[in-house]
Amino acid sequence: MAKTPEEEHPIKAVGWAARDSSGVLSPFKFSRRATGEKDVRFRVLYCGICHSDLHMVKNEWGTSIYPLVPGHEIVGEVTELGSRVNKVKVGDKVGVGCVVGACHSCENCNNDLEVYCPKMILSYGACYYDGTVTYGGYSDTMVADERYILRFPENMPLDAAAPLLCAGITVYSPLKYYGLAEPGKHIGVVGLGGLGHVGVKFAKAFGAKVTVISTSSSKKDEALEHLGADSFLLSSNQEQLEASLGTFDGILDTVSAMHSILPLIGLLKSHGKLVMLGAPEKPLELPVFPLLMGRKMVAGSATGGMKEIQEMIDFAAKHNITADIEVIPIDYVNKAMERLAKGDVRYRFVIDIGNSLASSN
Amino acid sequence: MAKTPEEEHPIKAVGWAARDSSGVLSPFKFSRRATGEKDVRFRVLYCGICHSDLHMVKNEWGTSIYPLVPGHEIVGEVTELGSRVNKVKVGDKVGVGCVVGACHSCENCNNDLEVYCPKMILSYGACYYDGTVTYGGYSDTMVADERYILRFPENMPLDAAAPLLCAGITVYSPLKYYGLAEPGKHIGVVGLGGLGHVGVKFAKAFGAKVTVISTSSSKKDEALEHLGADSFLLSSNQEQLEASLGTFDGILDTVSAMHSILPLIGLLKSHGKLVMLGAPEKPLELPVFPLLMGRKMVAGSATGGMKEIQEMIDFAAKHNITADIEVIPIDYVNKAMERLAKGDVRYRFVIDIGNSLASSN
Repeated sequence: MAKTPEEEHPIKAVGWAARDSSGVLSPFKFSRRATGEKDVRFRVLYCGICHSDLHMVKNEWGTSIYPLVPGHEIVGEVTELGSRVNKVKVGDKVGVGCVVGACHSCENCNNDLEVYCPKMILSYGACYYDGTVTYGGYSDTMVADERYILRFPENMPLDAAAPLLCAGITVYSPLKYYGLAEPGKHIGVVGLGGLGHVGVKFAKAFGAKVTVISTSSSKKDEALEHLGADSFLLSSNQEQLEASLGTFDGILDTVSAMHSILPLIGLLKSHGKLVMLGAPEKPLELPVFPLLMGRKMVAGSATGGMKEIQEMIDFAAKHNITADIEVIPIDYVNKAMERLAKGDVRYRFVIDIGNSLASSN
Repeated sequence: MAKTPEEEHPIKAVGWAARDSSGVLSPFKFSRRATGEKDVRFRVLYCGICHSDLHMVKNEWGTSIYPLVPGHEIVGEVTELGSRVNKVKVGDKVGVGCVVGACHSCENCNNDLEVYCPKMILSYGACYYDGTVTYGGYSDTMVADERYILRFPENMPLDAAAPLLCAGITVYSPLKYYGLAEPGKHIGVVGLGGLGHVGVKFAKAFGAKVTVISTSSSKKDEALEHLGADSFLLSSNQEQLEASLGTFDGILDTVSAMHSILPLIGLLKSHGKLVMLGAPEKPLELPVFPLLMGRKMVAGSATGGMKEIQEMIDFAAKHNITADIEVIPIDYVNKAMERLAKGDVRYRFVIDIGNSLASSN
């Protein structure tokens, strides 16, 4: 008979899990593996709530395995090390992002791009190599191979840094990969949510001129005064759109609702790049002629490899970049999910696991 | 009173023009400017029939000006030079492609990318800086600023080289720009027409492994035996598609009919590039999730700058690359357009202007 989640591994763990696609989370007892020789175990202190957690608890992508413990912006303090771990020591501040395993032998793994490995294992809701299910960071304890452990500098606030592990790398990586992380570039950020607001911060830190593009004029002050964007473009205003045609080197589109990308393609200079970071459920309309005429591209990007995530954290620490967060206790998580579904958060919920989830150990 | 096409310039010219959107071409008398100090005049010997000529004579893009003399794969022999021309001498074999003017001061012009200049002037059906209409290569004589004159080596067959000026550069440029012109890359070519067949030749010359992707199994022998492709993928065969998932570094999609790009995106490796070269009339469906998961891109490209066109011709000469053509007399042009509309050409019609159009001079 198959072992229960509580029995299958030696280390007791508690967390909050969704039991079915209603998406309601409730306390859940499970277990984690013993600390292997290359493993790092840590006490979870904070975990960010990513928009994909919401999709996953409701099985909106059709891939969810229940019970599902979400969370892939997981930070905490090292409590135990395997015998062959060199990367960190007990007491260090560390984190785990979206990925906890990959094949380590394919071209992507060899190029430090584990997230694109065909055998990549997500931090929650996936199957580990031993067949057991992976559980995320809405839980008291975490263990991972040191390759998947990120280090945070002592002086970085761990709660506000947690969202860097998904939101942060998701905007940082395409800015670098698509050649947009350069002084003087004009970068647009569509959608001012969890991703968008850190997108503005990273693009500014790279020396770009940053324009927030939004359907809502209520975001203007926030964009300009609070986040330090250089300008604001109301995308429902035809006049403003026309005045900005052909002026952007790149645009990060963080919107996952259905929307038209034709106006965004028009905003690009020739050779400009529209990078999609949100995943609308249905296909969008792609007008081909404007792509041809301006040698433009519509591209995607998914988080980043482990080496680049560490580079991003170090860059963020140097430039004082963290997320703007609302810290919540674990028993607020269902309410937080409701608010997140309505876009009612400024800009990321982070669960205070350390102070609100009674530890199992 | 405005001057007629025959009167507006000093040099008499004859050609074939469409008079309205019926698209029927008939003999047409017009005129060309005197040879300016930076101009090169040449006797037109051959002109390729590009698929866009068909769109333009029928005003299918809504931009046509009648009478319309098509043709932007124009080759011939230099007959007269302006006083400040250094690039060529009388008797040289030369050509003019899609573009005859640009601002020469913008970022694109400064980067030898005249075709992307916002003030770029097309070789036919456009307005020149003096307000007169540009007429293309279905005519006996041509004149252009030396910047827009391409040189052909003596030993290159001019008829089969003519299509390089549009079809050739349209496949060459994106292979270079998108990093696909490297030995060992796996390149797909969708659609085996005017563009596709030279796409196979250039990709092979760059050392790539080339797979022709087609809906029609009748193209298989042609692709493998005649054009030298390494393999053939029947895109309507689900089994073949699945066996090739994630194996392409780049795909040149030359199809201008409506079609689904989802299977093509699936064929790409992570970080792979789908380059659209045909321009379907309506937007295509763009699935975003697969772009994100594999950091893939859907991109466009339009011919190339003058410097790159010359580089492409020199590369083609070195590697014995020309188009496979059907040479026709000018009075076959309407029949050729009919056949082109049905895809009935192997692979490019080239009009023998020199021997079939009585010169005006």
